[in-house]
Amino acid sequence: MKIIVIGGNGTIGSSVVKELEQRHEVLIACRHGRDLICDIGSEPSLRALFAKAGKVDAVIVTTGTTHWEELSKMSAEKYQIGLSSKLMGQVNTVLIGTEYLNDGGSFTLTSGILNCDPIKAGSSAAMVNGALEGFIKSAALELPRGLRINVISPTVIEESMPKFAPFFRGYQPVPAAIAALAYSKSVEGLQTGQVYRVGY
Amino acid sequence: MKIIVIGGNGTIGSSVVKELEQRHEVLIACRHGRDLICDIGSEPSLRALFAKAGKVDAVIVTTGTTHWEELSKMSAEKYQIGLSSKLMGQVNTVLIGTEYLNDGGSFTLTSGILNCDPIKAGSSAAMVNGALEGFIKSAALELPRGLRINVISPTVIEESMPKFAPFFRGYQPVPAAIAALAYSKSVEGLQTGQVYRVGY
Repeated sequence: MKIIVIGGNGTIGSSVVKELEQRHEVLIACRHGRDLICDIGSEPSLRALFAKAGKVDAVIVTTGTTHWEELSKMSAEKYQIGLSSKLMGQVNTVLIGTEYLNDGGSFTLTSGILNCDPIKAGSSAAMVNGALEGFIKSAALELPRGLRINVISPTVIEESMPKFAPFFRGYQPVPAAIAALAYSKSVEGLQTGQVYRVGY
Repeated sequence: MKIIVIGGNGTIGSSVVKELEQRHEVLIACRHGRDLICDIGSEPSLRALFAKAGKVDAVIVTTGTTHWEELSKMSAEKYQIGLSSKLMGQVNTVLIGTEYLNDGGSFTLTSGILNCDPIKAGSSAAMVNGALEGFIKSAALELPRGLRINVISPTVIEESMPKFAPFFRGYQPVPAAIAALAYSKSVEGLQTGQVYRVGY
């Protein structure tokens, strides 16, 4: 398969690339990409990415930002950061990428644990993760030509604990290589409309 | 209790008002309101609503729009309608309304079945419903002074079937009066961070 990993330079993304490169042609797309340039928050950037990549068999997204702050200090503008980046960045990848996917191809998006198991300052992440789960369940019904879509919802990643441990006390982290298996299952399996929860 | 029902003139809202007026002082807020004027899509309108209403014990929202269209015809702009209205309209109600809620008071928001049991043309509703579920679970942790928050997720409402039946073939509708009980449970009970699924 020919696979694009948007965010393939990140903590999860690089493990996904490592897992899939063993068997497939993998193109890494990111802001300063090895193979392709893409800013997921920009529709023109996504259009340029697919125009350059051409037809592919799978698109994986492992990037997107949300704003982390206590509820009492949040605002509509701060929630919009996550809605525009992690939510609509991934949704626009689907809207724009659909015509570039070969029949039976797949989208694999990334959400996270915080809508199920919330923490302080995580209300934007919880909102966006829930939105992604609802979106993929619905989109799976309507994608044409046997195209599939799933979302991976990992708990906190082991390699990110040096940075995130204070927010995730008591959470058992999962190695990125284990999270990467869920992406492989989504791309190389046949399921659609699924939320793969990893490590919880 | 003193309770504001934003959208209290609608199909669900009017049943909620009927249920709660038996025991409480209920103020209906809507665009052309009986008691108070409010456009949930406008932050200034929400601020004006609470400034006029003063301190209350419960705020219920039973309004908000999403865009209904097939996935292949959706766009970022069309998804933004639901994100700005049904999602951020309700979230802004929480952000702005928090200071007007008496200790132990509650927010009760409204999502819907479509993130769990999706239909054609419902991907925006599915997205927004999932986002609301994630948001309230997280917000429940961070609200001050014993304030509570829940979301009601009803299946299609019986009184709406003349309009929505073609979209919801095979769905068993629930009378608005039954959905109204879940709002009563949220306002008059003690639970927080809950999704009350009604009729499914």
